[in-house]
Amino acid sequence: MDAKQIVHKMFDNDAFSKWLGIELVEIGEGISVLKMLVRKEMLNGFDVLHGGITYSLADSSLAFASNSYGRKSMSIETSISHTLPCKEGDVLTTKTIERSLTNRIGIYDISVLNQDNKVVALFKGTVYRSDKEW
Amino acid sequence: MDAKQIVHKMFDNDAFSKWLGIELVEIGEGISVLKMLVRKEMLNGFDVLHGGITYSLADSSLAFASNSYGRKSMSIETSISHTLPCKEGDVLTTKTIERSLTNRIGIYDISVLNQDNKVVALFKGTVYRSDKEW
Amino acid sequence: MDAKQIVHKMFDNDAFSKWLGIELVEIGEGISVLKMLVRKEMLNGFDVLHGGITYSLADSSLAFASNSYGRKSMSIETSISHTLPCKEGDVLTTKTIERSLTNRIGIYDISVLNQDNKVVALFKGTVYRSDKEW
Amino acid sequence: MDAKQIVHKMFDNDAFSKWLGIELVEIGEGISVLKMLVRKEMLNGFDVLHGGITYSLADSSLAFASNSYGRKSMSIETSISHTLPCKEGDVLTTKTIERSLTNRIGIYDISVLNQDNKVVALFKGTVYRSDKEW
Repeated sequence: MDAKQIVHKMFDNDAFSKWLGIELVEIGEGISVLKMLVRKEMLNGFDVLHGGITYSLADSSLAFASNSYGRKSMSIETSISHTLPCKEGDVLTTKTIERSLTNRIGIYDISVLNQDNKVVALFKGTVYRSDKEW
Repeated sequence: MDAKQIVHKMFDNDAFSKWLGIELVEIGEGISVLKMLVRKEMLNGFDVLHGGITYSLADSSLAFASNSYGRKSMSIETSISHTLPCKEGDVLTTKTIERSLTNRIGIYDISVLNQDNKVVALFKGTVYRSDKEW
Repeated sequence: MDAKQIVHKMFDNDAFSKWLGIELVEIGEGISVLKMLVRKEMLNGFDVLHGGITYSLADSSLAFASNSYGRKSMSIETSISHTLPCKEGDVLTTKTIERSLTNRIGIYDISVLNQDNKVVALFKGTVYRSDKEW
Repeated sequence: MDAKQIVHKMFDNDAFSKWLGIELVEIGEGISVLKMLVRKEMLNGFDVLHGGITYSLADSSLAFASNSYGRKSMSIETSISHTLPCKEGDVLTTKTIERSLTNRIGIYDISVLNQDNKVVALFKGTVYRSDKEW
């Protein structure tokens, strides 16, 4: 399977990414650009986007980018800094940069941007690359 | 406002925490125990819980524990390691430990446990404590 | 080789841990307690201990604790929060807790304490456990 | 004081950065490029550079870049992934990117590169910006 087939296979069965309303904008080896609209039910008690939604979007982006080479990869450690609040109606996009790729470990830097191209979150994800193939 | 009043105020308006089905088990200064049932719509393409849901639960726990002292606190940096997969029907509980608290910064260690008391995720959250009061 | 033999083999050839003046207090599978005196040449421009020294002590502790099972293990990702400044003459001790251990990944929580038993740094280390044996 | 004056003031009194043999290559607001030669006494038991040295170099780079605006800034949380081993004689250089800067918080991405321009470590640092001026 190639990158697109793998990601579609993952995505088609991913109930929560569907709930999030994630749209696959670009998919390739080590690359994934995802898009999502902020809805009312995603807000927290401050009327801004719950940090867990931004994390979820970045985490899906990590899963798609790292699995796209054909080897099943799982997240080992992730971190996120929320740098700007998001509101209902905002449109978020992920930008993925592969910072390091060895036989066993991949490290990804994922920025989440809003419709004004401002960074709303900085996410770093480290994955373990197993021998199991897609 | 005391810890319980603050958290109820945050929680009552938190649409996404409501969607998650979060239940407040224990609330106090620097403490928050939350409970959540894993539902089908929370699963990812591997039929296990999407990492973003576990993060969301821990992140809500961080917000409640750190704001409970009466000063508005916001997450600066959070990290999470997913140590065990979760399935539909699992019941997750958070356990919060305040590791450090200074005038400006709070650091929290939040474990997410399943119904068998096994750790499914290790979360660390750092907050900035503003001067604004609840 | 058992835990003690492995750590002594690592430590005996570890020039920088020697420079740090590290003392092995306790060694076992998944455990390592190290001790170190803060010297003048370890201070930064604020006349407090350079964060890199505290990290180094915790990182050595991680290496010893994780390699002690007999499988060569290497650090994948580490994070540290410096919670209290240290001064010349302080005596630092590490306390290691193994938070998760699977076939491939180990996660360690290492606290660095001073002579008054106050936490000066919170360190988290994730290692990859290779198949190579000591 | 301007960026260069501040960093020189910090650096001139920084005993451990001196021991490391750090050379200031470029200094500016939010910017610091540091250079360092790997010496024998910096190696660990595997005969490669101790992770604590790489961290120390990046951490000094963080301190210089974040303090250069004139407000005293202190590290809240730092993380580092060691992506390539370094040997005696290697020459390391830091490259600093300011990822976010608000009134209270600065987030820096610091890459450590070797003489072949290969990334040996990825460091992320978050600082708290106090009101105290240099």
